[in-house]
Amino acid sequence: MDFDAVLYGIHAVDEALAAGEPLVEVHLADDRKRDPLVRRILERAKAANVAVRFQTREWFARLPYKAHQGAVAIAPPFEYASLHDVIAGHRSRRLLVVVLDHVTDPHNLGAIIRTAECAGADAVVIPDRRAAGVNATVRKTAAGATEHLPIVRVGNIAEAIRQLKKAGAWVAGADADDVALELTAADLSSDLVLVIGAEGEGLGQLVRRECDFLVKIPLLGKVASLNASVAAAILLYEAVRQGPTSQKAP
Amino acid sequence: MDFDAVLYGIHAVDEALAAGEPLVEVHLADDRKRDPLVRRILERAKAANVAVRFQTREWFARLPYKAHQGAVAIAPPFEYASLHDVIAGHRSRRLLVVVLDHVTDPHNLGAIIRTAECAGADAVVIPDRRAAGVNATVRKTAAGATEHLPIVRVGNIAEAIRQLKKAGAWVAGADADDVALELTAADLSSDLVLVIGAEGEGLGQLVRRECDFLVKIPLLGKVASLNASVAAAILLYEAVRQGPTSQKAP
Repeated sequence: MDFDAVLYGIHAVDEALAAGEPLVEVHLADDRKRDPLVRRILERAKAANVAVRFQTREWFARLPYKAHQGAVAIAPPFEYASLHDVIAGHRSRRLLVVVLDHVTDPHNLGAIIRTAECAGADAVVIPDRRAAGVNATVRKTAAGATEHLPIVRVGNIAEAIRQLKKAGAWVAGADADDVALELTAADLSSDLVLVIGAEGEGLGQLVRRECDFLVKIPLLGKVASLNASVAAAILLYEAVRQGPTSQKAP
Repeated sequence: MDFDAVLYGIHAVDEALAAGEPLVEVHLADDRKRDPLVRRILERAKAANVAVRFQTREWFARLPYKAHQGAVAIAPPFEYASLHDVIAGHRSRRLLVVVLDHVTDPHNLGAIIRTAECAGADAVVIPDRRAAGVNATVRKTAAGATEHLPIVRVGNIAEAIRQLKKAGAWVAGADADDVALELTAADLSSDLVLVIGAEGEGLGQLVRRECDFLVKIPLLGKVASLNASVAAAILLYEAVRQGPTSQKAP
């Protein structure tokens, strides 16, 4: 079983079926057969022609998830988008892309994908090593956004940024550095790439060198940094406020 | 053992000791005695006069936490602040308070406390029932912010909002409702209370009635809502941008 392609939790499985997500197979705990929610899942799976297997508690105990609630669904492997398609696809409006420089926490990755989708971004770019990929936790945290927003996985983040620059985008790196521009002083109104660094480490040197400018969020208290997904959200919505998409009807 | 007052994880315990946080007792796994990190914790605990007990893996297995890594510390119970003190204390500058209407996820509560502290807020107000309190998970997610930002726990959220209104603050409720003002059209520049609703449910009717106005964050994609801590962050930093504290040096 490919654990990167598993949806777990009775509500997650039920919602995936209700939303018509393509599922390969659903596993349910055989001691919950009388549960109304399990019966609803059963009906929905039947209608969607998705195979259902009843499993013992011992079977579920071998899974790496504790919060499965006796229901897991196997989804097809996640389909990443290509950077080329993202760049070719924007044309008519402002390009807005989030690049994640080795964000390792799947909750942060999921939260950033959700916020990027809500902010009208075109894509999220992630590296294929030393970083979280789109697994079950990411999909769950992203609350459906992984179905709508292209996620691009690349071998070389710096190279991906260079391609986006060639397409005409400005590259803003999130950084608490002294030389960074204050949030509202930075111009985030045009075609834009927002680069967010790894939790606790910030931007890598190679990636930082590709940034046209650095931007920092004011920290008015004593805590030294914001959570990566919170920083991404504040930057994305400042870009929305400044840019042409902020004029778009919701 | 009061599990609300436990710090877990080898790094969390090490950092708490390094930061001089008051701890009652530290428990370490007896099979990790030779681990350099455990030895450092031992030295720091000794210097801080904190009692250390070595425990078996069976002892740790009884804890409700899986990510303890053989290290937990018992902290004194969390000390909540009083709303009266928060209102009395601000005087010289803009009052900025976040009120959480039954946020149940401790990760969201911790993340909101962290962001509120970074945005220069005066306090976070939470209800004492049907909501997350400040427990170990909240403290960990808040990354130290619970030590700096007053957290007020009240029996009645609507009554707390009325007190803040009497002190002269405007009350903005976060809501995706059609009648809500668009983020940048709302005036968030003066003494302000931001009310954030429960995940998936939004604001309760009694609380909504106390709001002077509702404010919504533009959703430009297909996902129906933002995560509660992300919504709080975007609203807080829009208030920072509009308000007098945004002029304050970081």
